[in-house]
Amino acid sequence: MQSVLFILNAIENGETTPQETVARSFDAIAATDARIGAFRSLADRDGALAIAGKATGPLAGIAVGVKDIFDTHDMPTEFGSAIYVGNRPAGDAALVAMMRARGAVLAGKTVTTEFAFLQPAGTRNPRNLAHTPGGSSSGSAASVAAGMVPVAVGTQTGGSVIRPAAYCGVAGYKPSFRLVPMVGVKTFAWSLDTAGFFAASVADAAAFVARLTGRALAVEPVDPKALRVGFYRTSIWGEASADMQAAVELAAERAAKAGAAVVEIDEPPALTAARDAHLALQNFEAALALAFEYENHRDRLSDVLRENLEQGRATSAEAYDETRRIARRARRETGALFETVDVLLTPSATGAAPLGLSSTGSPAFNKLWTLTGNPCVNVPGISDAAGLPLGVQVLARFGRDRMALSAASWLETLLAGVQITASKNGALRAALP
Amino acid sequence: MQSVLFILNAIENGETTPQETVARSFDAIAATDARIGAFRSLADRDGALAIAGKATGPLAGIAVGVKDIFDTHDMPTEFGSAIYVGNRPAGDAALVAMMRARGAVLAGKTVTTEFAFLQPAGTRNPRNLAHTPGGSSSGSAASVAAGMVPVAVGTQTGGSVIRPAAYCGVAGYKPSFRLVPMVGVKTFAWSLDTAGFFAASVADAAAFVARLTGRALAVEPVDPKALRVGFYRTSIWGEASADMQAAVELAAERAAKAGAAVVEIDEPPALTAARDAHLALQNFEAALALAFEYENHRDRLSDVLRENLEQGRATSAEAYDETRRIARRARRETGALFETVDVLLTPSATGAAPLGLSSTGSPAFNKLWTLTGNPCVNVPGISDAAGLPLGVQVLARFGRDRMALSAASWLETLLAGVQITASKNGALRAALP
Repeated sequence: MQSVLFILNAIENGETTPQETVARSFDAIAATDARIGAFRSLADRDGALAIAGKATGPLAGIAVGVKDIFDTHDMPTEFGSAIYVGNRPAGDAALVAMMRARGAVLAGKTVTTEFAFLQPAGTRNPRNLAHTPGGSSSGSAASVAAGMVPVAVGTQTGGSVIRPAAYCGVAGYKPSFRLVPMVGVKTFAWSLDTAGFFAASVADAAAFVARLTGRALAVEPVDPKALRVGFYRTSIWGEASADMQAAVELAAERAAKAGAAVVEIDEPPALTAARDAHLALQNFEAALALAFEYENHRDRLSDVLRENLEQGRATSAEAYDETRRIARRARRETGALFETVDVLLTPSATGAAPLGLSSTGSPAFNKLWTLTGNPCVNVPGISDAAGLPLGVQVLARFGRDRMALSAASWLETLLAGVQITASKNGALRAALP
Repeated sequence: MQSVLFILNAIENGETTPQETVARSFDAIAATDARIGAFRSLADRDGALAIAGKATGPLAGIAVGVKDIFDTHDMPTEFGSAIYVGNRPAGDAALVAMMRARGAVLAGKTVTTEFAFLQPAGTRNPRNLAHTPGGSSSGSAASVAAGMVPVAVGTQTGGSVIRPAAYCGVAGYKPSFRLVPMVGVKTFAWSLDTAGFFAASVADAAAFVARLTGRALAVEPVDPKALRVGFYRTSIWGEASADMQAAVELAAERAAKAGAAVVEIDEPPALTAARDAHLALQNFEAALALAFEYENHRDRLSDVLRENLEQGRATSAEAYDETRRIARRARRETGALFETVDVLLTPSATGAAPLGLSSTGSPAFNKLWTLTGNPCVNVPGISDAAGLPLGVQVLARFGRDRMALSAASWLETLLAGVQITASKNGALRAALP
């Protein structure tokens, strides 16, 4: 994979130039994407290299893949929908404009499921082409995992950043709600939609977003003895595969061995309720956000989307308001959890990437945290017996993105190259305090 | 002015048809708008009448003016900016699609200041053509005040719904934050931007939004003896003109005489701090939201916008985060205020509409409530010695929109036709409990 930090250091040391590193990304795409299908459209190579040649900002030399629900004035923006084939927005999404202003170059628009919902779009998982890369940020996760670009941008409404990152074995970072702007991004559910980032390692993702936003987000060294980790199985632990359970237990075990204080945390009922409320809230907002498409192009929507929009239309305003109150209580409860721990450790997905391309997998372990808005990081490194990645998720208090990233980066070093060969479900619980 | 309730009742009673009422709006625009300048572009009359002729939804027969920062797939959407002349979005904003699905007809796009900020755009105040109609929803307020359409849609980031409604002498309703979707509306500051509605009376505005959203928002009869009104002068009372002070004092006096429990409420320091923090928060978000325009079309921005964007760019992420914390505290404090009162009564603007078209006036009395997200209503009815309207503002607890609308509608009946002939600043304070 291409590393943000490696590229930036090499440029800083005069060993390469932004033009060369961007050219390498375009070369990798040309050599690789035919079998992955991560990109929906590509930027003009010569134009991009010309821009890179003049770039001076803190992201100069970084080629980025951007999910095709972000507006770009110079590339089609099709939202993964037949309704918008050839659509050309008048301007760039705020995040795109920010990246460009800081010297990054857009390599292309990455494949998204239809309006970033569930209908799969054909991208393959670089770790095993027979498996899904996850969704909805399918192309973004795959483009980084296949070594085509050092960074890709996606979004998460249910689990569309953390899950595909986990399936593809790359770092995924979903910032605190509205830490980065969503202006110019096709809305699915405005209370949930959150931009996120894919990179080879957690430190790479953190470095990119730090330079993009000017925020102090670069990972810091973690003193394990000062780190309090909550091992959070959730009330849906049974939905995780035996391999995934073993992976998270192993992560907790290694964190404890390295000196961190690891405690088990039972899920408060208010958070279980919030996970259950996510779909109704999402569908109600989606039915309004996509009212134009539903009213005018209903026959060009997938069945799964149309059915969910119809559920949203059938949801009363009162029922929606109740989901918002549930979400508010969940945010308060989550804040209370972080009185006793610095980070929570929980599965990134129910297991490894499912076989086949007919489903992008389940967001069960992600959607609660999209609703609460906490920063989440997928820690790559563990794989199953077949070599498929098993991601574990680290999250921190709202606004403590640097803590989530730093702890995740530390854990990444403890888990690099680990393979789960046999499940040992349940064995860890007794070992923890 | 055209009344939503009158139109809907007349259609329901078979006295007129949706086609006739919509035609009347187009006729009024043709007869009036040359001297007002409320519309930036008009829908095709024949096409609109054909749609109205077939409309069956709960808003059939209502012609609407929509601020030109809402996307429309069949009309230009120019955001009041030279950068976007002739811009044609691919779809409709969610609110536009909702209105159309419920039978309303778009009469046209109303004039907005540049990106809904401060640069005036030439619309005149129908109550006196020498005066500003206020901004940024200049055309929306004026189109209703001049009797061209029964309803217009605008947005408020500082005071862009309540202030122009007050200046033009119409009802203005800014719902609770995110009660109505902002999808497809040009973003200025995502924590603040709120769609709002203009109509002849408060009951008209409430009826329209009730039918639009399916929410129980129609005004209810108020039992004055059960109504607790907080007279909220604010810490910037001195910025209100003597006439405005007299108008709000009179409103409090009449409410008390009619049986309501009126108490003076001093502004908590946390709310003063929030008002002071509004601009920094707004500018930081605007600098990101308009990053594409700033980076690519800087020379086509007004001086006032460019300067504010540059202030936003110079604001640190830490300073911005602090404004968000201040906003959160203010929301909590506002909630506490509503433990003891049902509504707050406060000025809608610093005074009557300023003379001339070189300024759209001050949002000083609005921006705090945009930041807290409380529902606000401008109550029309009072005017000054020159006949210019003096609006008073009623607001309620977050989510209690129906309370704000019902109390405002009740107050509207108490204040209809009142003229402030001489200021009596300060005379009321002693009369209150």
